[in-house]
Amino acid sequence: MSEIQVKAKAFAQKIFDDVRAMSQDVQGVTRQAFSPKETEVLQYLTAIGESLSLEIEHDRAGNVWMTLPGKDRSLPAFVSGSHADSVPQGGNYDGLAGIAAALTVAWWMRQTNFQPQRDYRVLMMRGEESSFFGKAYMGSLGMLGKLTEKDLALKHRDGSCTLGEAMAGCGIKVDDVTAGKPLVDIGRMAAFVELHIEQGPTLDAQDKARAGIVTGIRGNVRHKAVRIIGEAAHSGATDKQYRHDALMAFTDLMQRIDRAWDRWLVHGEDLVYTTGVLKMASSAAISVIPGEVTFSVDIRSLSADTAERFHQLMQKYAQEVAEERGVKIEFDSALYTAPSGVDPQLSKTLEESAAAEGIPFLRLASGAGHDSAVLGNNGVKVAMIFVANQLGSHNPHEAMKIEDFMQGTDILWAAVSHYDDK
Amino acid sequence: MSEIQVKAKAFAQKIFDDVRAMSQDVQGVTRQAFSPKETEVLQYLTAIGESLSLEIEHDRAGNVWMTLPGKDRSLPAFVSGSHADSVPQGGNYDGLAGIAAALTVAWWMRQTNFQPQRDYRVLMMRGEESSFFGKAYMGSLGMLGKLTEKDLALKHRDGSCTLGEAMAGCGIKVDDVTAGKPLVDIGRMAAFVELHIEQGPTLDAQDKARAGIVTGIRGNVRHKAVRIIGEAAHSGATDKQYRHDALMAFTDLMQRIDRAWDRWLVHGEDLVYTTGVLKMASSAAISVIPGEVTFSVDIRSLSADTAERFHQLMQKYAQEVAEERGVKIEFDSALYTAPSGVDPQLSKTLEESAAAEGIPFLRLASGAGHDSAVLGNNGVKVAMIFVANQLGSHNPHEAMKIEDFMQGTDILWAAVSHYDDK
Repeated sequence: MSEIQVKAKAFAQKIFDDVRAMSQDVQGVTRQAFSPKETEVLQYLTAIGESLSLEIEHDRAGNVWMTLPGKDRSLPAFVSGSHADSVPQGGNYDGLAGIAAALTVAWWMRQTNFQPQRDYRVLMMRGEESSFFGKAYMGSLGMLGKLTEKDLALKHRDGSCTLGEAMAGCGIKVDDVTAGKPLVDIGRMAAFVELHIEQGPTLDAQDKARAGIVTGIRGNVRHKAVRIIGEAAHSGATDKQYRHDALMAFTDLMQRIDRAWDRWLVHGEDLVYTTGVLKMASSAAISVIPGEVTFSVDIRSLSADTAERFHQLMQKYAQEVAEERGVKIEFDSALYTAPSGVDPQLSKTLEESAAAEGIPFLRLASGAGHDSAVLGNNGVKVAMIFVANQLGSHNPHEAMKIEDFMQGTDILWAAVSHYDDK
Repeated sequence: MSEIQVKAKAFAQKIFDDVRAMSQDVQGVTRQAFSPKETEVLQYLTAIGESLSLEIEHDRAGNVWMTLPGKDRSLPAFVSGSHADSVPQGGNYDGLAGIAAALTVAWWMRQTNFQPQRDYRVLMMRGEESSFFGKAYMGSLGMLGKLTEKDLALKHRDGSCTLGEAMAGCGIKVDDVTAGKPLVDIGRMAAFVELHIEQGPTLDAQDKARAGIVTGIRGNVRHKAVRIIGEAAHSGATDKQYRHDALMAFTDLMQRIDRAWDRWLVHGEDLVYTTGVLKMASSAAISVIPGEVTFSVDIRSLSADTAERFHQLMQKYAQEVAEERGVKIEFDSALYTAPSGVDPQLSKTLEESAAAEGIPFLRLASGAGHDSAVLGNNGVKVAMIFVANQLGSHNPHEAMKIEDFMQGTDILWAAVSHYDDK
């Protein structure tokens, strides 16, 4: 590692350490969306931008833009960043890693007296996590004027305030974020690259390729509560042919799904399926055949078509199971989140940058959603860099190695610094 | 229907109506084991016995014996009856039907001036249901001196008292019921026949055979909480090959069991399997792959060997699923209840009685446990008559037709009145 790389690592490490100390909770860290704590973290990071003589701006949705002026200021900017908030008692790296990487690249430019051809902007967004208000991507959606009155009326999970009230508390004029018009000039963004920890185990399972270039961001089809209605009965006195066991019907449906999922993967479809919640009736007991269960459905794919076809296959299976087992299966309304593509040219730039730096990488899908998807679905050319992360995310045990982070940051630095070379 | 049958039906119907009115709850009826309400019901029924000039005795476990003297009082008695208590907000017929049938037979004897060869005794037991204290068959076990100190220390489910305290409140000397010696002379019981509503749907599904002669009482092997430990992870970001989904592993195990169960039934084994309770970890969420589930197991069979072999097969399947899916499956201690046979000769007597009366019947297993099993496993010759019952038992919707009840009672009457004819 060169001397400047060692220094860059120390620069980034200090950001992680300081922000962790600032937002420590009983377990992990808590940086609630649109809270004084999120503001405090943004102020700390803004001060770093000021120390690097970046131009500081706040958009009307509360996000912070810090610009290192390029040689030709008429060109649209290369933008990089991520979100400053976290889930309650979450890990320190989800979101913060992308800001730290973008800031480290700015620091690198200043250290090496490098001036890019076009403006390089660090974007620090607010409120990406849905844990507190039940709504995700609030900072990026607000920036695009795409929040709704209904969103602003969402209650904090402790009932203390609405999202609108929390935003107003951060000095945001809430009329702007629901106006339906972008609060920033999208045309002035040539590219947006977000570095993020991988929230799955794929990269951490690799010996060499600890960095990833994202091929797309999975969308999903969800059901909060599918109901299976069978018939409760005495577990000893009811022979098999008279049973309408709601839980056994559920297991039958799940196994049909599990086998179909295997086949779809063999055929090269991108697909994950999860039932994360299953609830039994309150009368459930060891000697009672289950009369009712409800369960959640989360189908995700890079392809909206794949997700929807699998969703339909699931409904077909449900019908079969209902007929064979004499139960009713009722689906609540499906909730859709569209997948997001990444810009192929921008992704290729990232791949070339990694190759030029000699950094091994994987191409992989993002299973989790990101602000990048919101921007990508609204006309911005986006791409993402993933870095290996241990023990998953959205939990206090999140553990990113700083060496892995530096590899991802090197790719970003190479991409930004050579962006106008061609 | 003959005039006396019409009168007998009215006699029985009045018992059902009066006891229902006496024990009505918000929904259904509640006749708590060893409660003043159970005592009140027993006093009402005892008064009916007195009006039929039966000899009344109370055993030291609180059960009531009412005797119609036979011609030869040196012979051991023919005994019939059941339990007076109910589950909370249960149905009116579970237990009470057996007492009403035994009483109706005594009434019939008096109406027709019939004196049996041997004493005919109506046995009204206390505390058969486990709902309040977590222990079943308390009246019959107490009568055999087979309750334990541990049983007596069991807390009422509302925490208000122990079983021992509740029994003492009914005037029972609790030292007697745990002494290990029968409080009644088992040798003085030639036969015990219990009439009971069927707690499954088999008889109610029949057009003609609305009565059943029980072939045996199923025992069970149970687990309160089997744990599957997988790995919680992000539902979008974790591809199939990296998953250790505890809930999906559960569905896999259940489907292996379901298919094996089908095969065992084809091979003629008596078997029912139920998972009545499944609990997820508190962190379960729509976007989290389940890291842990626990579930209950209830395997029942007329054959202890069948139940145990299926139990072992389940553990083998659990090992396979654990290996294939990378999860751990931990079984808690198994709880065993032995199946109980019925006396073949006594059952044959019941079958012959039904045939003689022209009453169609099915031979069927009792899936639920009964005081008869306790007596049968302790040297008494027992047999059971089932009558069709709608909407299951242990719920307020229990619905027995009085015509079905009368068919069962006719079988009992024929069996008692011809018992010494051979």
